Amino acid sequence: MFEENGKNLPLDGNALIGQSGGPTAAINATLSGVIKGLRGCPNVKRIYGAKNGIEGVCAGKIVDLALAVQTAEDHYALECTPAAALGSCRKKLPNDLNDPVYAQIFDVFRSYGIRFFIYIGGNDSMDTAEKLSRYAQRNFYEIYVVGVPKTIDNDIMITDHTPGYPSALKYIATTVEEIARDCSIYTVKAVTVVEIMGRDAGWLAAGAALPRIFGQSCADLVYVAEAIFDFDRFIEDVNGILAEKPNVVVAVSEGIKTADGKYVGESAQSGSVDIFGHKYLAGAAKVLETHIRAKIGCKCRSIELSLPQRCAGHCLSKTDIEESVLVGASCAEHVAAGLSGDFAYLERDDNPDGSYSVSVGFCPVSKVANHIKTIPVSYIVPRGCNVTDSLLTLLAPLIQGEVAIPMQNGLPKHFTID
Amino acid sequence: MFEENGKNLPLDGNALIGQSGGPTAAINATLSGVIKGLRGCPNVKRIYGAKNGIEGVCAGKIVDLALAVQTAEDHYALECTPAAALGSCRKKLPNDLNDPVYAQIFDVFRSYGIRFFIYIGGNDSMDTAEKLSRYAQRNFYEIYVVGVPKTIDNDIMITDHTPGYPSALKYIATTVEEIARDCSIYTVKAVTVVEIMGRDAGWLAAGAALPRIFGQSCADLVYVAEAIFDFDRFIEDVNGILAEKPNVVVAVSEGIKTADGKYVGESAQSGSVDIFGHKYLAGAAKVLETHIRAKIGCKCRSIELSLPQRCAGHCLSKTDIEESVLVGASCAEHVAAGLSGDFAYLERDDNPDGSYSVSVGFCPVSKVANHIKTIPVSYIVPRGCNVTDSLLTLLAPLIQGEVAIPMQNGLPKHFTID
Repeated sequence: MFEENGKNLPLDGNALIGQSGGPTAAINATLSGVIKGLRGCPNVKRIYGAKNGIEGVCAGKIVDLALAVQTAEDHYALECTPAAALGSCRKKLPNDLNDPVYAQIFDVFRSYGIRFFIYIGGNDSMDTAEKLSRYAQRNFYEIYVVGVPKTIDNDIMITDHTPGYPSALKYIATTVEEIARDCSIYTVKAVTVVEIMGRDAGWLAAGAALPRIFGQSCADLVYVAEAIFDFDRFIEDVNGILAEKPNVVVAVSEGIKTADGKYVGESAQSGSVDIFGHKYLAGAAKVLETHIRAKIGCKCRSIELSLPQRCAGHCLSKTDIEESVLVGASCAEHVAAGLSGDFAYLERDDNPDGSYSVSVGFCPVSKVANHIKTIPVSYIVPRGCNVTDSLLTLLAPLIQGEVAIPMQNGLPKHFTID
Repeated sequence: MFEENGKNLPLDGNALIGQSGGPTAAINATLSGVIKGLRGCPNVKRIYGAKNGIEGVCAGKIVDLALAVQTAEDHYALECTPAAALGSCRKKLPNDLNDPVYAQIFDVFRSYGIRFFIYIGGNDSMDTAEKLSRYAQRNFYEIYVVGVPKTIDNDIMITDHTPGYPSALKYIATTVEEIARDCSIYTVKAVTVVEIMGRDAGWLAAGAALPRIFGQSCADLVYVAEAIFDFDRFIEDVNGILAEKPNVVVAVSEGIKTADGKYVGESAQSGSVDIFGHKYLAGAAKVLETHIRAKIGCKCRSIELSLPQRCAGHCLSKTDIEESVLVGASCAEHVAAGLSGDFAYLERDDNPDGSYSVSVGFCPVSKVANHIKTIPVSYIVPRGCNVTDSLLTLLAPLIQGEVAIPMQNGLPKHFTID
């Protein structure tokens, strides 16, 4: 709450929304929620969007969102469209707040009369929100910043889960269920290794086991990034299943590592890193495919689920889309009320009847920026070759409900913001 | 029509259905249609299914389908379930009809009183149907055989298209539309290469261009198996698009070949080995990814759509499912009427109003067995880097309509036959 004219009222001003980091299938539902929320705040005058996140702010690429998204149909279509409709970026702001880029950004804020800045993104984007908030405070620039989480990785602290994760989880569970069924039709011994996104956390890979608690086909073995991977034990595990049935489906996090801390996929890679210093990874499944052929000698195939995990808008979780809209709208109200430097999180309600629902809470963005949430070890079976039913029971509510997405000519009709 | 007791009536007897070859998302819709059709034929007494195709016939693994699939709900659930519910095989029958396997198969036919044999499969399965039909004729065994086409590859002769192809096409078009959208959100130069199934024909890869005629995101360049692939021209093509926009999406058939007849995927001669010293085998897209990095130097990613292309039951074409049921039912009536050695094909009706519909026709299975239908050269642009709008217009009706598949606990509920 900013004090002005002796009254404890939030300031009037314009709002700017940006999307950043890897996209999700629900990131536009959050954007839609933010716009809806801001529309309900009388002190918010204009609603702008930054193309390509903070990169677009620097370049002055600003669009009028109140014009771009008008009707209820627009909102619905936006909510059903995967990948950041405003475009995204992977720009990391410098640690030194004296860097000229900050002055550049705040010049744009000033020229557009921006008093409210809403940044939808993952861990790295929370870092951006945190820095902008600190810069504003230090320079007495009256801007309110809020970070809205989204990431399929589900690796953000404090929040029960991240918007975008449930849809990715549903897509992975559905696709692995179908792959497991496809693999089961032959009588020839065969192993299929499915590689699932997740460099540091196995939240997504857990989806490969999710159909199990509902009696559907799924992965027989699941190796998450949190469990130390051992090649010999892996071959034992696979042989154990092969003794029972001819087809084995294995799911692995892309980030599985051996006891010496080396990524299983590391050998096949160039060792290049992205701008955040993250090692570029791929190929764990390919390495395991080759290993199985050599050690077991049966037919083996590897599959990387790849990009569709984060952009399969045709397989949305209704729960995810509704929560993403909710969190977006809550953030809008929060920032318009003059609160700044916060991050929105989802808290699972403790309903007496055990039913599932969530509420939105807020905490300082500094609490979550640059931290990683992994699967607690108690949710991984001692041998490290699967996740427990308790974890799956915890995750199951997230994938409930389907979304009737707008279709045209037999294909999804995506909403665009130019 | 078999003449018996001086009357020109089809014989009474039992029917046996088998599924064979690579599965599709619609192969069970055909199975459902066959069962429905047979139920309407008074001379068909019992309806059996062979587990794992002709392999299961040899092993005497026979199930009672009238018991396994009873209600309208059972039929609908079966129609919405991907991958052969009866199991499949890749067994090729010997050319020598004196091989003892034929006597073995016909012993099983005899012991189950099989007079009608319906084999649902691809090119190799049509070969099986053709041989069984010839063996029966030569040995005066009164059995009627019909081959029912299914393959996502769409490479069977005579038929307008193959049941199963439209759903694969819809999945590919939808997924590439989403991938193209995902790739478009960054401003950094990047190329994404999507590898699509199709060793000899580019029918599936054409799906990567399909959203184009409806104004949706899609692949910028499409290299089908039928066009000779040239690495230098490919780099020119990619650079041409990169001059216009930062993100390029390329789709390739897995079976693209250079002028010397070598598969691009075969040329994975990076010499790279994994940590065990095993040679790393790459697909066509991986080879092109490496080539782009070397020649253009920008960010590049490769994606193999892999198995989901043939088993994504959550993204069915309603047109496909309806046609698959229709072709199954027609085959049942055809074979029960005492006609044998035929193959069912779809013929596009020549409607005066230009609307789309198909009819089922029959021709000798020998006409289609062991032949391949490829995309006519007139449907490929002269430079070989895309398919024409006329091809896409021809394919568009196939992906129309969505199927509300049975869901339970947020996941597809698959139907099983034990």
